[in-house]
Amino acid sequence: MRILPQLAFAAALVAVSPAFAAEDLAAGAAAVRDKALTDTLAWDITESLTSEVGGRMVGSPAMERARDWGVAKLKALGFENVKVEAFTTPAWSRGAESAEVVGPWPHKLAIIGLGNSAPTAAGGITAPIVVFKTYQAMLDQAPGSLTGKIAVVTQAMGRTQDGSSYGAVGVQRRAGALEAAKRGAVGYLIRSISTDDTRLPHTGGGAAGGIPAAALSPPDAELLENLAGRGKPVLVKLEMASATNPAAPAWNVSGEIRGKERPDEVIVVGGHLDSWDPGTGAIDDAAGIAITTAAAKLAAGPGKPRRTIRVVMWGSEEQGGSSGAYAAAHKDEVAKIIVAGESDGGAGRIWSLSTPPAGAGHDAMKAFRATLPKLKVAVSSAPPRSGGADISGIIGLGVPFVDFNQDMSRYFDLHHSADDTLDKIDPAELSQNVAVWAAFLYTVANSDIDFRAKPPAEAK
Amino acid sequence: MRILPQLAFAAALVAVSPAFAAEDLAAGAAAVRDKALTDTLAWDITESLTSEVGGRMVGSPAMERARDWGVAKLKALGFENVKVEAFTTPAWSRGAESAEVVGPWPHKLAIIGLGNSAPTAAGGITAPIVVFKTYQAMLDQAPGSLTGKIAVVTQAMGRTQDGSSYGAVGVQRRAGALEAAKRGAVGYLIRSISTDDTRLPHTGGGAAGGIPAAALSPPDAELLENLAGRGKPVLVKLEMASATNPAAPAWNVSGEIRGKERPDEVIVVGGHLDSWDPGTGAIDDAAGIAITTAAAKLAAGPGKPRRTIRVVMWGSEEQGGSSGAYAAAHKDEVAKIIVAGESDGGAGRIWSLSTPPAGAGHDAMKAFRATLPKLKVAVSSAPPRSGGADISGIIGLGVPFVDFNQDMSRYFDLHHSADDTLDKIDPAELSQNVAVWAAFLYTVANSDIDFRAKPPAEAK
Repeated sequence: MRILPQLAFAAALVAVSPAFAAEDLAAGAAAVRDKALTDTLAWDITESLTSEVGGRMVGSPAMERARDWGVAKLKALGFENVKVEAFTTPAWSRGAESAEVVGPWPHKLAIIGLGNSAPTAAGGITAPIVVFKTYQAMLDQAPGSLTGKIAVVTQAMGRTQDGSSYGAVGVQRRAGALEAAKRGAVGYLIRSISTDDTRLPHTGGGAAGGIPAAALSPPDAELLENLAGRGKPVLVKLEMASATNPAAPAWNVSGEIRGKERPDEVIVVGGHLDSWDPGTGAIDDAAGIAITTAAAKLAAGPGKPRRTIRVVMWGSEEQGGSSGAYAAAHKDEVAKIIVAGESDGGAGRIWSLSTPPAGAGHDAMKAFRATLPKLKVAVSSAPPRSGGADISGIIGLGVPFVDFNQDMSRYFDLHHSADDTLDKIDPAELSQNVAVWAAFLYTVANSDIDFRAKPPAEAK
Repeated sequence: MRILPQLAFAAALVAVSPAFAAEDLAAGAAAVRDKALTDTLAWDITESLTSEVGGRMVGSPAMERARDWGVAKLKALGFENVKVEAFTTPAWSRGAESAEVVGPWPHKLAIIGLGNSAPTAAGGITAPIVVFKTYQAMLDQAPGSLTGKIAVVTQAMGRTQDGSSYGAVGVQRRAGALEAAKRGAVGYLIRSISTDDTRLPHTGGGAAGGIPAAALSPPDAELLENLAGRGKPVLVKLEMASATNPAAPAWNVSGEIRGKERPDEVIVVGGHLDSWDPGTGAIDDAAGIAITTAAAKLAAGPGKPRRTIRVVMWGSEEQGGSSGAYAAAHKDEVAKIIVAGESDGGAGRIWSLSTPPAGAGHDAMKAFRATLPKLKVAVSSAPPRSGGADISGIIGLGVPFVDFNQDMSRYFDLHHSADDTLDKIDPAELSQNVAVWAAFLYTVANSDIDFRAKPPAEAK
């Protein structure tokens, strides 16, 4: 059982193009998939980045170490054309943070500041809280009605496989500080955008509302609900020091496995190298970098693919900037980018995927789809919708893209919290991701599929 | 379905003693049990203590608030003879704490100081770590072999229903600092005594080894293992400020439901009022206080039992002192204490129990045991073994005791960590505890059972 896939893999590599028959593509893709399922490279990359760098916010010294780590890792793995493409981006940085209920019932609160939060003055602010159990309830307040108050939104996020609750409930993090400020609030607290119930708060980007804004751990949000329900004014003291660098240095790091026949036809995949700071950025997004890097290596095998596979480690996803910088730097190349994909949904299994409809009938896609039943992946009939934050810039320039949807049922237990650490990753689930990406990269890199071809008749 | 138990309950109360037939005891116990299953008093008490006081370490201002809360709560619930019995005990208190890997790979570490830890000098200590994957491996080191090092023990605790892994693995917390110091270590870190994998460390009492000692969160312990495995010296900086008050004020708070026939015959039950500081002390041990207080109220009903039921909120379990103080204050009374019990295993269901063998044949125990199948409690044939830390003093003076064993499968996910909060308690599981205790208190308080009677022939 363990020998056979290896033999098939070797045989497939011998059979590589120029005349790449459909049966060879299918056999090769299956062999690449099976090799990925027992390969440990993605785990090793994830362990390396999380151990040797850890949390790495754009603008921080750790991000410089992450850049150097990325260059060294790609070179050590034999990637060619390893590049560091510099850009600048606004970067918010955290300082000391604390919150407590001053009275009538004193409690220290577990909070974490949200990106773009304003700092408090030294000594902090102390104000009565107003608790809203839904975000809409706060929006329903009139301008000025929260003057002098700290607005607290305690709406909880439900668990979803596709992560859709993040969009629905996450708005209280992304937009709420500005809305609270409009209504006069002097501070803004939310229940963390989290599906877990630990005492660890979850950070993330917020609106620049000019007031301090932070997330409470779920138990602390429930505590404030319970205290507010007692009918006496509840005073909270909030102290936050933070700063924003309007032009922090950042870098997109990339490396290639150059194609031997059509090196200028490029498949662009990757994850983002930056992370939030409380954890070690394991699921967000060391895993994405590891999955795509390992998949590229496995897809290429000891030989070379016909086309070029490029792995990009985008340098400022969490606070934005890397997508636009990448598109700007590669705008003259987009016609040569066959397809792009980003892995940025953690390390849970891929449970569904969609590829550009234009390529659906091509032998390469048939070979790829044939690898999926064993991996328990459903092929969606809908076209790809998102692609990923870091490829949105080149998607905007017309580059075809894929959505490989990871199971996010547990993702938001960990996301943007101190719990985003290596031990939360299941090696088998990580390998399943690598297998899907490797099979995809293998089939696209060793065929002439063109996802931009509109009429199905033109495919192959 | 919901009316019938109430009717049975009322009927049973009418039937209460002086001549308390076996069938009346059984009907009354069943009615008390059923009422407990839908009663919310225990939840309300737990919510009140965790919300209005929160974490409460002996020697802290919060503990004074807890004492006042206990007195007010017992009086509000109609308990008589509400007493505050003062004593003094050594109390360790936490100060600012931090730890970080200085190099070669910088990381902030999630730690929490262990009780009895020594502080570091201002500015902390920085030293290379030596990682031991088992506690025994550290014990196997020769005296002096750890000179100048920070010893790190990363042994993990397994999940057990009876909590037995706490004794086995917990020794690295309870005794390790002294053993590390004997071997020359300048600091001591352990993997938290925890069955969870969150980034929250778990505190608890440790040995006074004269060196700083702290617990790492499980992911941080695994990170140090991974870093140490890279073959370069790993430097850790540890900074801790703590202090010990050799004679902190403490209090055992109690109240009684006085018996109408034999008021001097007393059943002593309770939990401990103090807690560790990172959480709000919900499962450890607001729940125990709530379970026994609610059970006493339910067992008494609107009338009065024949014997006295006393609820005690012991004031210094975590750092010790309340058991000895209670025994010293009540040593002249022990002959009148019919039986004692402590609820201090969280809020998980009671899954087995044992009562003193001497009472096994009495009608009261038959009536009590008849309530248990519905509650899914197994009656152990073994005699009680522990009783609880706060009643160990009076047990030593000859007081009979019970063990009501709670399911601790999840207890050590939360225990002594910031995650010990109200939201972790399942109201149905809490009510099952109350039902067991209430049925027991009802049958003992309304009978003449004497657990100290040795020959079974003497039992009623």
